[in-house]
Amino acid sequence: MKMNHIIIFFFALLISSSYTFHVSSSANDFCVANLHKTPDTPSGYPCKSPTVNDFVLSGFGPGSLNKAFNVKLAKASVTELPSLNGLDISAARVDIGPNGSVPMHTHPDATELLIMVQGRVTAGFINLTEVYVKDLKPTDIMVFPKGLLHFVVNSGAGEAIAFATYSSSKPSFQFLDSVLFGNKLPTSIIAKTTLLDVSQIKKLKAKFKGTG
Amino acid sequence: MKMNHIIIFFFALLISSSYTFHVSSSANDFCVANLHKTPDTPSGYPCKSPTVNDFVLSGFGPGSLNKAFNVKLAKASVTELPSLNGLDISAARVDIGPNGSVPMHTHPDATELLIMVQGRVTAGFINLTEVYVKDLKPTDIMVFPKGLLHFVVNSGAGEAIAFATYSSSKPSFQFLDSVLFGNKLPTSIIAKTTLLDVSQIKKLKAKFKGTG
Amino acid sequence: MKMNHIIIFFFALLISSSYTFHVSSSANDFCVANLHKTPDTPSGYPCKSPTVNDFVLSGFGPGSLNKAFNVKLAKASVTELPSLNGLDISAARVDIGPNGSVPMHTHPDATELLIMVQGRVTAGFINLTEVYVKDLKPTDIMVFPKGLLHFVVNSGAGEAIAFATYSSSKPSFQFLDSVLFGNKLPTSIIAKTTLLDVSQIKKLKAKFKGTG
Amino acid sequence: MKMNHIIIFFFALLISSSYTFHVSSSANDFCVANLHKTPDTPSGYPCKSPTVNDFVLSGFGPGSLNKAFNVKLAKASVTELPSLNGLDISAARVDIGPNGSVPMHTHPDATELLIMVQGRVTAGFINLTEVYVKDLKPTDIMVFPKGLLHFVVNSGAGEAIAFATYSSSKPSFQFLDSVLFGNKLPTSIIAKTTLLDVSQIKKLKAKFKGTG
Amino acid sequence: MKMNHIIIFFFALLISSSYTFHVSSSANDFCVANLHKTPDTPSGYPCKSPTVNDFVLSGFGPGSLNKAFNVKLAKASVTELPSLNGLDISAARVDIGPNGSVPMHTHPDATELLIMVQGRVTAGFINLTEVYVKDLKPTDIMVFPKGLLHFVVNSGAGEAIAFATYSSSKPSFQFLDSVLFGNKLPTSIIAKTTLLDVSQIKKLKAKFKGTG
Amino acid sequence: MKMNHIIIFFFALLISSSYTFHVSSSANDFCVANLHKTPDTPSGYPCKSPTVNDFVLSGFGPGSLNKAFNVKLAKASVTELPSLNGLDISAARVDIGPNGSVPMHTHPDATELLIMVQGRVTAGFINLTEVYVKDLKPTDIMVFPKGLLHFVVNSGAGEAIAFATYSSSKPSFQFLDSVLFGNKLPTSIIAKTTLLDVSQIKKLKAKFKGTG
Repeated sequence: MKMNHIIIFFFALLISSSYTFHVSSSANDFCVANLHKTPDTPSGYPCKSPTVNDFVLSGFGPGSLNKAFNVKLAKASVTELPSLNGLDISAARVDIGPNGSVPMHTHPDATELLIMVQGRVTAGFINLTEVYVKDLKPTDIMVFPKGLLHFVVNSGAGEAIAFATYSSSKPSFQFLDSVLFGNKLPTSIIAKTTLLDVSQIKKLKAKFKGTG
Repeated sequence: MKMNHIIIFFFALLISSSYTFHVSSSANDFCVANLHKTPDTPSGYPCKSPTVNDFVLSGFGPGSLNKAFNVKLAKASVTELPSLNGLDISAARVDIGPNGSVPMHTHPDATELLIMVQGRVTAGFINLTEVYVKDLKPTDIMVFPKGLLHFVVNSGAGEAIAFATYSSSKPSFQFLDSVLFGNKLPTSIIAKTTLLDVSQIKKLKAKFKGTG
Repeated sequence: MKMNHIIIFFFALLISSSYTFHVSSSANDFCVANLHKTPDTPSGYPCKSPTVNDFVLSGFGPGSLNKAFNVKLAKASVTELPSLNGLDISAARVDIGPNGSVPMHTHPDATELLIMVQGRVTAGFINLTEVYVKDLKPTDIMVFPKGLLHFVVNSGAGEAIAFATYSSSKPSFQFLDSVLFGNKLPTSIIAKTTLLDVSQIKKLKAKFKGTG
Repeated sequence: MKMNHIIIFFFALLISSSYTFHVSSSANDFCVANLHKTPDTPSGYPCKSPTVNDFVLSGFGPGSLNKAFNVKLAKASVTELPSLNGLDISAARVDIGPNGSVPMHTHPDATELLIMVQGRVTAGFINLTEVYVKDLKPTDIMVFPKGLLHFVVNSGAGEAIAFATYSSSKPSFQFLDSVLFGNKLPTSIIAKTTLLDVSQIKKLKAKFKGTG
Repeated sequence: MKMNHIIIFFFALLISSSYTFHVSSSANDFCVANLHKTPDTPSGYPCKSPTVNDFVLSGFGPGSLNKAFNVKLAKASVTELPSLNGLDISAARVDIGPNGSVPMHTHPDATELLIMVQGRVTAGFINLTEVYVKDLKPTDIMVFPKGLLHFVVNSGAGEAIAFATYSSSKPSFQFLDSVLFGNKLPTSIIAKTTLLDVSQIKKLKAKFKGTG
Repeated sequence: MKMNHIIIFFFALLISSSYTFHVSSSANDFCVANLHKTPDTPSGYPCKSPTVNDFVLSGFGPGSLNKAFNVKLAKASVTELPSLNGLDISAARVDIGPNGSVPMHTHPDATELLIMVQGRVTAGFINLTEVYVKDLKPTDIMVFPKGLLHFVVNSGAGEAIAFATYSSSKPSFQFLDSVLFGNKLPTSIIAKTTLLDVSQIKKLKAKFKGTG
């Protein structure tokens, strides 16, 4: 008797829960991204019905090699982990080869927390004309505030490995070289707005496949 | 003449207003939820054209009885009041029978404001190891900060009635018993991560229809 | 032995918890307002060490009578309930006498949820040139979206009572009459920007103690 | 050889960038509004693939004349500049003829920054019963905090011109006269909640095409 | 000559930058926490003048042992890394011994991203009555949405190590056992609101140093 | 009699209003910055009692000349207009001489809206490897999304003038040259993380007073 009512009660809870699930419009539930349903919105992707696999990324290993800087970057953002949709956090794995580096770049609106796992690096960021540089070893953590230019240079003998986490579910990586030289931005404009020599600009445009 | 222009002017206003209405992308207008249009997004449901009934909920009376705790809960969240979409507020009505209670639960990311209307209760919440408990009577209000475990126990002779309001348009109710014992979470894992006795876990799993 | 370690462990927890308490810089804890410590900041008051009384307001009864509109307003905002600091929710009690009303007003940036408890009222709000008006009785709830002009008129025989809740810990009440006529705003400016007759303006300035 | 890899690397970047582009769920990228795709959400419109023209509005000149107040208003909000979607900023151009004014109004949840370009005006806003009024000339800037009633009166001989910017991508303009008198809100309710004379209300309802 | 002006120009920049630094009221700069200046505010600590050491935490190794669950937890939150103030991100290191676990707990309002580094674990969370459990190995990442009960059990032979990151600069750890049993919450209330047996409650209160 | 009560009522309102004023902890009021009271917090400066002058900036003319780029920049941010504190908007005036430019720079977390007033310019921004460039004339408006590199080049015969507005009350200006070359960042690190030639780096360090 009492049991019947409890069954009814929790069956009701079950209903309401799975419903809450798909249609929550508040921040106190999650909204797993439906990556196949485009377009998205300023707050993220439309929601889908979740499965445990939406919350787990397996085999988060090194990314593909970039020979220009001898670095491998692998991302765990909302496109790899759809459950991050709307939750303002993500991660990346960084493997820097000998003499390699994560080149100068910014993440607009995402703060980065770098956790050293292997090797030795020199990392830093710049705010206006203030420079913040530090040598890092495993068990060291460094913060790069949102939107500021930063870099990581392998200063050790072997490979350096670190995990980076971000205060955004999909931080973009604005690599300075590809932004300045990897496109059709006219050399004359780059020269006038950076005071870089035209010869230097053309040299790097050739390297990074830019035109104009 | 002047009138004609005014007509044109306010007709224009009318147009722009009803347009603003459906497509506003800012927080300074409202976006009535289209509940029939799924899925939603991290910021809420898609918008629909509003009518006055989207802003009014009639007959917000007691909810259905839960005999396990002798309590009735009725919600006025975005699914009952679609105009709450994106507005970060909602309400609930709580009717607690003699010896009844609102069991231990949390609302992730929603603060609760409890307004006593009838009867006597003992209510409280816990933050880490600090306990905040108080006896409440009609005309008393209590705050339960977001995400913390809280409860309300009927400490009077008759029925206790209160209105609860939340800083979310769709707060979820994470009842501790249904979360711990109303599902397929293995008894061994519950035992290891809570130190509850296996016999206690099995007893409550039976009560709350859990398995494993 | 094991016990000693557990004692140490939870004593540590106790320390860290009470510490978390006072210095939390995140939204997942609360920050009880120190009302005696001014000034505050855009996000609220400085924090104080909490006690259970900071979370409870007792005797939330009718406010003092305003004879102009035969209404009593009582607030339960952060200044009455310091635990609301930073939590984006608050409440008010509204007692409207026969033929009385809550006059036309706005709450900049705070949505209102009105819960009817006694009597009969006609309530509404206006968005641009769209009007949303409804007759309300006990067990009815109405939503007034943030920043829009709204009102509540007692349409019944006796007193009407309602609880209002807001999506802000300290909503301001911008009563149209006191904003337009209860200050030193020059009559000529009011006339030019509202097209109200000068005689009407002067009549209401006299009523609401305005000058100029 | 090295070149091939760089080509591959930046081709990869190109892919990921244009992808990031369309599906970003974070605030550190932009989401150009697809205005033809309705409905929108509380956070804004669905995103579209961007072109440079989504970021530029050409010929942002005077708006159409409103003879009631001898003022021209032109907006540059998300509907005119779809790239503003989700970016919380927009602009308007204000041309006020001799003896004209921007009538008393509010922008719920949007702060306004007024930049004077030509002429002389008297501008101000009211918070509760405090009045903030100032005479402005070109090179003056004035702030009108979100949600508060404000106005701009041409106090010079010729036309006054100003640019207004807002902390919202689509601020609504709640003109007091059209909100109070340009709709079907019953005269009896307006009279009771504002204490305006019935004759005054009827006179302005006639002027602003209101009924009831 | 030209040089002098450039010197002046960049000296000015230097001034403004270091000024921007201390007094920024926007999110596009950082505000390093002055931990010695209490109390804080809902948005975080007051700011201090930064040094590179505010951005780096060295020797982020295992925390102190908790013998109850054979686990070591070390935090890198705003109190250890003052530059995290207001930046909504932090980290923790988790070392779980054989047969150990991170006990059932919640982080109100903080999402957790768990990055496996060593060993084997079974991790999971519960939303209402839905359970999300998965076996994890190094190179696996799992997401625990904000405010939900979750756990990590060592399911391997040796020690398991993971890095956890959070979408808050100071997440609190609400361990279920210490919240329920490590304080003065009366046994009768716990029993009534959880349906746990009194004997079970008393047994765990003894274990976790609770009273009442 | 009635009058007395009204006096009392509005006197009370006056009190509460001026109180609301200083202690508001919600976003629906303003908090004028007390610039003389340091330090600030992540949400902005402490509040002060406001006067009309806190809302008005007079004589917002051209800034001082930067001969390196033949440009004058003047800011109207929270430090010049304390009422902007916490309101997420500000402005700047840009005067670009013949052949001058606003050099390549970013505003972390602030979107810019550029309103052309005089002359001809070529303006643009880059997202990853996509370039958005446009020729602008008076009455044109262009959007630069937050955190992205952008520039404005004078492409006309005479001086170009524009007003820029930002979605932040204190946007920082990260000029690429001063960030890369105007400080003590070692040449070897710049070379390794940008692939710029050492000779080019030294040349610009000399120009922008950098060392190392």
